[in-house]
Amino acid sequence: MDNSGGRRAGGRQWRFGPNDVLAGSATVSIREVLGRVMANIQEDGPRPVIPLGHGDPSVFPCFRTTPVAGDAVVSAVRSAKYNCYAPTIGVLPARCAIAEYLSLDLPYKLSPDDIFLTGGCTQAIEVIISVLSRPGANILLPRPGFPFYESRCAFSGLEVRHFNLVPERSWEVDLEAVEALADENTVAMVVINPGNPCGSVFTYQHLAKVAETASKLGIMVIADEVYDHLTFGENPFVPMGVFGEVVPVLTLGSISKRWVVPGWRLGWIAISDPNGVLKETKIVDGILNFLNISSDPATFIQGAIPHIIEFTKDDFFNKIIDLLRQTADMCYEKIKEIECITCPHKPEGSMFVMVKLNLSHLEDINDDVDLCHKLAKEESVIIAPGGREITRKIKTREEASISSNVF
Amino acid sequence: MDNSGGRRAGGRQWRFGPNDVLAGSATVSIREVLGRVMANIQEDGPRPVIPLGHGDPSVFPCFRTTPVAGDAVVSAVRSAKYNCYAPTIGVLPARCAIAEYLSLDLPYKLSPDDIFLTGGCTQAIEVIISVLSRPGANILLPRPGFPFYESRCAFSGLEVRHFNLVPERSWEVDLEAVEALADENTVAMVVINPGNPCGSVFTYQHLAKVAETASKLGIMVIADEVYDHLTFGENPFVPMGVFGEVVPVLTLGSISKRWVVPGWRLGWIAISDPNGVLKETKIVDGILNFLNISSDPATFIQGAIPHIIEFTKDDFFNKIIDLLRQTADMCYEKIKEIECITCPHKPEGSMFVMVKLNLSHLEDINDDVDLCHKLAKEESVIIAPGGREITRKIKTREEASISSNVF
Repeated sequence: MDNSGGRRAGGRQWRFGPNDVLAGSATVSIREVLGRVMANIQEDGPRPVIPLGHGDPSVFPCFRTTPVAGDAVVSAVRSAKYNCYAPTIGVLPARCAIAEYLSLDLPYKLSPDDIFLTGGCTQAIEVIISVLSRPGANILLPRPGFPFYESRCAFSGLEVRHFNLVPERSWEVDLEAVEALADENTVAMVVINPGNPCGSVFTYQHLAKVAETASKLGIMVIADEVYDHLTFGENPFVPMGVFGEVVPVLTLGSISKRWVVPGWRLGWIAISDPNGVLKETKIVDGILNFLNISSDPATFIQGAIPHIIEFTKDDFFNKIIDLLRQTADMCYEKIKEIECITCPHKPEGSMFVMVKLNLSHLEDINDDVDLCHKLAKEESVIIAPGGREITRKIKTREEASISSNVF
Repeated sequence: MDNSGGRRAGGRQWRFGPNDVLAGSATVSIREVLGRVMANIQEDGPRPVIPLGHGDPSVFPCFRTTPVAGDAVVSAVRSAKYNCYAPTIGVLPARCAIAEYLSLDLPYKLSPDDIFLTGGCTQAIEVIISVLSRPGANILLPRPGFPFYESRCAFSGLEVRHFNLVPERSWEVDLEAVEALADENTVAMVVINPGNPCGSVFTYQHLAKVAETASKLGIMVIADEVYDHLTFGENPFVPMGVFGEVVPVLTLGSISKRWVVPGWRLGWIAISDPNGVLKETKIVDGILNFLNISSDPATFIQGAIPHIIEFTKDDFFNKIIDLLRQTADMCYEKIKEIECITCPHKPEGSMFVMVKLNLSHLEDINDDVDLCHKLAKEESVIIAPGGREITRKIKTREEASISSNVF
């Protein structure tokens, strides 16, 4: 029987088996990595679990979202107007509200037709990677980065090439590396700003250089701005879309982080491209086609968006920023007191701090993954390893890297 | 330049272009098909639009969901316990509640570990098709059917083979065709019961034969039961999982239809497989891996599920069933009065009626698609064509096929 996919089970032969690509794709996902760390937690341990492994502080009461947001959702549910399926691209009032919200920080105006609603930024990434995956194509991803990109690329068969973020230069993009890595099959580079997992915030000048480099190479920029506006250092948040005239930008965003509601699963893709390159090259059609064969964010959450955006007060945003600043400062100062880890750059945004691990100061710790597992087991503290790629590289210097939330 | 993917736009060359597979995948999606029908609506037409093209009666006040469901969601939002990311497979209380709910109709008990929450049944289909897509594999789909399956198979490169549902035999599966179509690379067959778009409800005896056939062929059954319990004819709803001892079954379900809240986007995959074949063959691992790289249903909707399932009264379900019966009867009787269409089998479940179109009684109508477009344009009535495959076949007999909701 010529059936390599079939498997024996229950004492007989079956013709099905799982898609082999999936196992490899999921292995590098942040959920799998954190799942392996969390598996070390002792359920009957003496300490409460301190979850610092992912960008979700919503479990801490001080990070509770604004009542404005909850009220808007409750009102949308009560109206019964949003029990129905939503249009593929999302309900119009929500797209209008997000277009206006994003346009506040841009030198041109987005239209509702530039906005596509997604199930959190997660689905936005899934959409973009699926649309860009052509045979032979490759994409440039930051290292350290957010491994969900690597997972989706592995699943879609899109080749990944990593450029470094440089800790000595405030985790800026190594643009020479970008130029060296790109070839005629490179389609895009990803910029995560404010940075996950390095807590960096790029300057206007650096983003301008990113745009120039991408334009020169003929590639688009995927701007992951899920942590937009969450900055507490010297550099203000500058959306990559500001440079949409220089290079076409796909901006990915969400209410997950700024409103501290990642479980609500409402994100977006914004076409930050006043020259219409992404439309002309059919990338926009590709996004629509993919959304036509995908699930959507819940309709009533879409229905709540205009109210959430219009009525959330600056007080709420400022309170969250202040909390993040305090906790980041606290982390940074405490890290100075710990001999085996150093923080190369004080966090200025997002919810993370990235540190270097000096293994020579630690007994019985092999690498960052090993440290994270043992910290979970012995201290019930969850932090994330710095990523397989970077780990492998840094280990040669007897160092490793871990990242942790700052809240 | 060796870059077949690149395109010119804005007077220069770019290196990116969209994944070509997507355009073909989306063309057959129900959203695209309905979108093309709806594009014919005259915005300033004299009549209100009557939307009968998809399984979503929630816009009609008489099909409003139970207050129990709205209250449960409001309470989950207000608790602020569900603003966080959910675990990959869904929150435990929701999986417990769904396992118990489904077990009521099964000869064995499902465990919460058999339940995976998804963004509606849409994402459940996406998961399953992605997991089963191996090079060379093929899947057997019903004709008429729900074209989202065809879309996802096209996207994943899973070969589709169609078996007919036989109108003269209450739209039962042509099991001889199933046997003839299957080969050593066939991995699964899909059974949609209650039927979309034929409004059929399969008997216990017929489902037993389906199970025997699949078992003999060594393939699994994907049981799409999104319309579970929505039956109003002689045959009661029998879940395919009843035959899980005979053949492994993946049951797909949702609160979308029974609770009339498709926009809430909460569905599930249930492993209806007491022999553990799907675990042993790593299909369950494949599902988990895929969910690890996917978005989730909103956490607070997951949090509301136990309350929704426990406290919804039979009164509500009975009211919906009565409404569906009345509207189905009305449709069936009115169709008898229309010369150009005939209904081969009175609908007994789900929300659809499938009819045959006799083109010889119509002037200036080429086929079912043409009729749907002109009906939208001239009468503002939205109904769905019967599907490209069936259309092509039936047209040779100067007939076509349309499907329409019965509400």
